[in-house]
Amino acid sequence: MDDPLRHHGDVEVAGMEDFAVNVYGGPRPAWLDAALRASLDDVGAYPCSAAARGAVAARHGRPVDDVLVTAGAAEAFTLVARMRAWRRPVVVHPQFTEPHAALEQAGHAVTPVLLPEPFALDPGAVPDDADLVVVGNPTNPTGRLHPAAAIRSLTRPGRLVVVDEAFIDCVPGERESVVAVRDPGLLVIRSLTKHWGIPGVRAGYLLGGADVVAGLAHFQTPWSVATAAAAAVEACCSPAALAEAAHRAGLVAAWRDHLERGLAELGVRHLASAASFVLAQVGHGVHGRLRDAGIAVRRADTFPGLDASWVRIAVRPPDRTDRLLRALTSTETEDGVPGSRTGTP
Amino acid sequence: MDDPLRHHGDVEVAGMEDFAVNVYGGPRPAWLDAALRASLDDVGAYPCSAAARGAVAARHGRPVDDVLVTAGAAEAFTLVARMRAWRRPVVVHPQFTEPHAALEQAGHAVTPVLLPEPFALDPGAVPDDADLVVVGNPTNPTGRLHPAAAIRSLTRPGRLVVVDEAFIDCVPGERESVVAVRDPGLLVIRSLTKHWGIPGVRAGYLLGGADVVAGLAHFQTPWSVATAAAAAVEACCSPAALAEAAHRAGLVAAWRDHLERGLAELGVRHLASAASFVLAQVGHGVHGRLRDAGIAVRRADTFPGLDASWVRIAVRPPDRTDRLLRALTSTETEDGVPGSRTGTP
Repeated sequence: MDDPLRHHGDVEVAGMEDFAVNVYGGPRPAWLDAALRASLDDVGAYPCSAAARGAVAARHGRPVDDVLVTAGAAEAFTLVARMRAWRRPVVVHPQFTEPHAALEQAGHAVTPVLLPEPFALDPGAVPDDADLVVVGNPTNPTGRLHPAAAIRSLTRPGRLVVVDEAFIDCVPGERESVVAVRDPGLLVIRSLTKHWGIPGVRAGYLLGGADVVAGLAHFQTPWSVATAAAAAVEACCSPAALAEAAHRAGLVAAWRDHLERGLAELGVRHLASAASFVLAQVGHGVHGRLRDAGIAVRRADTFPGLDASWVRIAVRPPDRTDRLLRALTSTETEDGVPGSRTGTP
Repeated sequence: MDDPLRHHGDVEVAGMEDFAVNVYGGPRPAWLDAALRASLDDVGAYPCSAAARGAVAARHGRPVDDVLVTAGAAEAFTLVARMRAWRRPVVVHPQFTEPHAALEQAGHAVTPVLLPEPFALDPGAVPDDADLVVVGNPTNPTGRLHPAAAIRSLTRPGRLVVVDEAFIDCVPGERESVVAVRDPGLLVIRSLTKHWGIPGVRAGYLLGGADVVAGLAHFQTPWSVATAAAAAVEACCSPAALAEAAHRAGLVAAWRDHLERGLAELGVRHLASAASFVLAQVGHGVHGRLRDAGIAVRRADTFPGLDASWVRIAVRPPDRTDRLLRALTSTETEDGVPGSRTGTP
């Protein structure tokens, strides 16, 4: 589609080595595969996410009324956009563009707040009269992990602060998550897509005050959460899943270190990341030259606040990362400068 | 939920013999099961319904731009509700209440047109200034099949006529379908849920003029059609699927004849149906007494234009139908009259 806010990495990867899509690069766990296969035995009945809802509530120590299971985070964003006649919705950029696009789709005029590099959250940059503030943590595409205290300082009477925690599973101990904070001014959105590698299932959930959650549920399309999605949510809340999630977070950190070290050795400027991707300033023209070499990284110029000198690189196992690093070594920028392009790391 | 327009048969069946949900009562075809299982190999990528869209277009002899794959018919109704600031949306009742509820959810004031018994479509009953008219064919819960000519006579400049053909697969040859009519004033909504018995997958599609379809697609939540749903849509468009669909339509007709004959023998007033259910006037109190006997039929008083003397009975294989008929025989109405309750068949 032509709207840059609706550009996503998945359209960049056809036939390419994929460093564009932020989905975990390892195999699917056997217990998750088994849950998905077993769910096919139940698709003869209308879907029901009550068990999944209960599992999420138990996992995060919240009442069931604080939880809504959704068809991925994407549905959650559309519900937020529709639930109220927002007077001044604010989206903190650079960040995942779907919340912004969903608000515009619902007819709202969005006030963007553009954080300057290095993209630390500055609560003072958010207008006082904002009644909705959307922020990602850790943030896509910057990888920046904001302190929970900074997020919480955004709340005030009459304002809903929506925290997209789609990548918080990458953070050991889910540090800086506000998912357990029972503040009716906070709404947390989670996704199973990335950490569990199941974007095709459309599974996610949100947690907030019971009134807000009921308001969002009111706008949910009936049965929007398919049987397989509900089964996946339930399965991913089990103790075994949580243990594996923590293990994956450690793996992602090790893989990311390998990528960041390689970029540093090449002198490629990049931001320290807490997520499963790294934002790197490879220089103008490099995105296209990597494509020519069969490697898809995510263009970053569709994110407000960034330009075409930046790309987002998905974290992959070291052997795959090495292929990307070799390709970067032999790729020149439009200025003819290989390796580091625009300054200090 | 408390809204009668959002009452559905699936909440009536827990632990009961199910005559409430209008889903085909036979086993799932092996090819469909195989397609669903194979789709799990693809859920590591974001879902894409391009192949399904092409298959639907080819099946119905329409251009690809006339087709949108949806997360069941329910998503299609919400898209219709959101696509325009409808001035006077009209829903022809009695019919499936989701289109009405979706319009209200999107903030529209709906003008209901209540057809009198026997619920034949009367185009003259629709207000001239209606810019949206929603009608079911065959209609849930009446089972009434309207002539395609009557449906087409509803179209006029500045009006969109939405035809819910979720049960047209039950009609041999899909007689009276307007799916192949290339009139930009017509929008046809289809579901895979009922005929293929996969409500848990959330698979459906719509066909209309390319401009209307593009307008609806604009309001679709990204990736709302899961990988399994797209795979199911594609599989159900194959020549083998179409042959089996026709065979099923014949089976449903035979099973329905058995039910209708049984009701007639009991003197239970009912409407001749073209669908996979029969609307029967069993009398007040019978719905609850059947529940006491472990049998769930669909209460019909939540449908505008009907009262609690009516129930909707799903068509099932004859042995199961006989259990229902026996229970009806031994069930008295609140007036103490067994069998026929309110008049001539």
